Amino acid sequence: MRKTRIFTPGPTPLMPEAQLAMARPIIHHRTQEFKELFLETRRLLQQIFRTENEMLILTASGTGAMEAAVCNLFSAEDQTLAVVAGKFGERWVELCQSFHVPCVTLIKEYGEAATAEEIAEALRRHPETKGLLIQACETSTATSHDLEAIGNLVREEFPEVTIVVDAITGVGCQPLEADQWGLDVVISGSQKAFALPPGLAFMSLSSRALRRISSAASPRYYFNLAKELKNQQAGQTAWTPNVSLVVALNAVCKEILCQGLDKVVAEAELMARCTRQGLLALDFRLLSSSPSSAATAAFPPEGISASELSKRLEQRFGLKVAGGQGELKGKIIRIAHLGYFDTLDVFCALSAIELCLMEMGQPVEPGSGVKAAMLEARQS
Amino acid sequence: MRKTRIFTPGPTPLMPEAQLAMARPIIHHRTQEFKELFLETRRLLQQIFRTENEMLILTASGTGAMEAAVCNLFSAEDQTLAVVAGKFGERWVELCQSFHVPCVTLIKEYGEAATAEEIAEALRRHPETKGLLIQACETSTATSHDLEAIGNLVREEFPEVTIVVDAITGVGCQPLEADQWGLDVVISGSQKAFALPPGLAFMSLSSRALRRISSAASPRYYFNLAKELKNQQAGQTAWTPNVSLVVALNAVCKEILCQGLDKVVAEAELMARCTRQGLLALDFRLLSSSPSSAATAAFPPEGISASELSKRLEQRFGLKVAGGQGELKGKIIRIAHLGYFDTLDVFCALSAIELCLMEMGQPVEPGSGVKAAMLEARQS
Repeated sequence: MRKTRIFTPGPTPLMPEAQLAMARPIIHHRTQEFKELFLETRRLLQQIFRTENEMLILTASGTGAMEAAVCNLFSAEDQTLAVVAGKFGERWVELCQSFHVPCVTLIKEYGEAATAEEIAEALRRHPETKGLLIQACETSTATSHDLEAIGNLVREEFPEVTIVVDAITGVGCQPLEADQWGLDVVISGSQKAFALPPGLAFMSLSSRALRRISSAASPRYYFNLAKELKNQQAGQTAWTPNVSLVVALNAVCKEILCQGLDKVVAEAELMARCTRQGLLALDFRLLSSSPSSAATAAFPPEGISASELSKRLEQRFGLKVAGGQGELKGKIIRIAHLGYFDTLDVFCALSAIELCLMEMGQPVEPGSGVKAAMLEARQS
Repeated sequence: MRKTRIFTPGPTPLMPEAQLAMARPIIHHRTQEFKELFLETRRLLQQIFRTENEMLILTASGTGAMEAAVCNLFSAEDQTLAVVAGKFGERWVELCQSFHVPCVTLIKEYGEAATAEEIAEALRRHPETKGLLIQACETSTATSHDLEAIGNLVREEFPEVTIVVDAITGVGCQPLEADQWGLDVVISGSQKAFALPPGLAFMSLSSRALRRISSAASPRYYFNLAKELKNQQAGQTAWTPNVSLVVALNAVCKEILCQGLDKVVAEAELMARCTRQGLLALDFRLLSSSPSSAATAAFPPEGISASELSKRLEQRFGLKVAGGQGELKGKIIRIAHLGYFDTLDVFCALSAIELCLMEMGQPVEPGSGVKAAMLEARQS
């Protein structure tokens, strides 16, 4: 029997609740039924983002919400600071360039995280900075920035700086306290920890962010957040929303909250630890010095091509992992833990990797990767 | 048994093929499987748009594709002419304003269409015009512009004018020959004749449009069509696409082409004629002097409130029609014919309307609306 398993950090496997919701007959969005469901979904998202801030749902990929943040909050006269530790940090810079928003960068090597102190220093060097643009998890390197420390330090020393967090692969798989840590804009997307197809993005907006929206002058229309906010507070959207995905999102949020957000996050963290131990036992080398719980990125053992390994995993077992992006292309594999996964999936992925390595001539003690992962799981 | 029927011009009822496709486990977009499916889907859309031009699929509502057309094709120095015959024509103007693109308007009363000659006159008055922005069907008034005459006349007299058509509710329910009529950009959306949930927009781009893209300077990132084109020619997308909807779109396009596009369009035209005859027999008054086959807009008989009638249709029969927008709010009802409908659905809607009118005290000969519709259907 040919089965398919995706271990990519987006799209992630669909939650059955989502599949069933998406197969339902569609309802119209200008109805009381949709309005109530939409308002409830906004409240559920607030619980998952740990925020009482405004919450918007956009019909777009996560990149659309990143654009919305840039073009609604900043203009040509607003200095921003972007933390660039990989492809998604680079996306902040490209977005600012596209909208003529000045952007200085704090560049980290691939696999490294920016510390709160480094960010504070950069802000001190650029005291005119209006916005900090950062990732919760830089998915291209599977690296987490310490948003708790960063948020607390920036909030204390730079009260006027608006903190904008691409948490597209952060929400629901690593601790994230939007309000407690003072994060003004937090962005996520449907195809990540929400275990839905791509097509919706979510963003929370603090009052600090809302004040910027009313003053920033960059052009926008589809991503006009002031217009969205006015509509969404009334349970509607500015443009026709992806109704089916919103219905499925409602079901998935309830499932996540029913299982308990802390438990869901802890499970992702456990899967990440197990994966790391398993890969290390198989002579992989971790890319990141601050590894995320969304995904694990690792270099294969000496003499094994990452591309060859990925191809073999797919051909032999229908198991899809992600590769590297940009300069990491062909050098690493990335295995996701966010969304509809459990620990048994980790053992399953590791056993497939073991078998492929053996077939590729690597000396592997069968079961050694799985064993290391199991020991980690038992400890926890 | 409580059933629900939507007769709104988007979202429209889902095709069963779409529902089944959306419930399937998701595949990853960076795979050969998706690439082949995506390239095939682009070709299927070309057949439905009747074009050999480039075809793009965007993860956004139709409005997103309208924005993409404006900000990729025009800049602050490019004069445009927008035909404004309702809310969606007004959207062209708002979009141009948002991106500082100069826009003169040809304004028609709600329910009126612009003629080719009127458009040519406006272009003669503004010989510097670079782009014509128009709807195939102005959904807010259910009015069709004669794109064949307009396209042919503009192409002959104004070879440099790029014709941009919002055919969001035009494709698949009224004749539309993008290439034969010289339409440079044609836009549609998933939740219309494609009988899918909202969330995808499609647009064809002629070589004239592509030349404009390379010169226009308006800011864009998520809707960067040059980047999209480069990716989509290779079977990929610039940003994570709504994979599930693309898979469903593929299935739906095949179903439409298997039934025959001309036949599908003729069926929508028949439904529109039947609906008009049925409503006229029930003393409704048509709003449009150039009624579309996407939807029918009509004023209820004297003394009957459109809002009351809509509400009663929904409460009594779970049947949802659309109301008026803007200054037509509360004054008309709109019944859709585009997508997964057949002639029996028209009889069903008319019988519900008859019953509601009777309950509201209107003197109605039971069956008279349905009878008029049936006679029209038999004639055809």
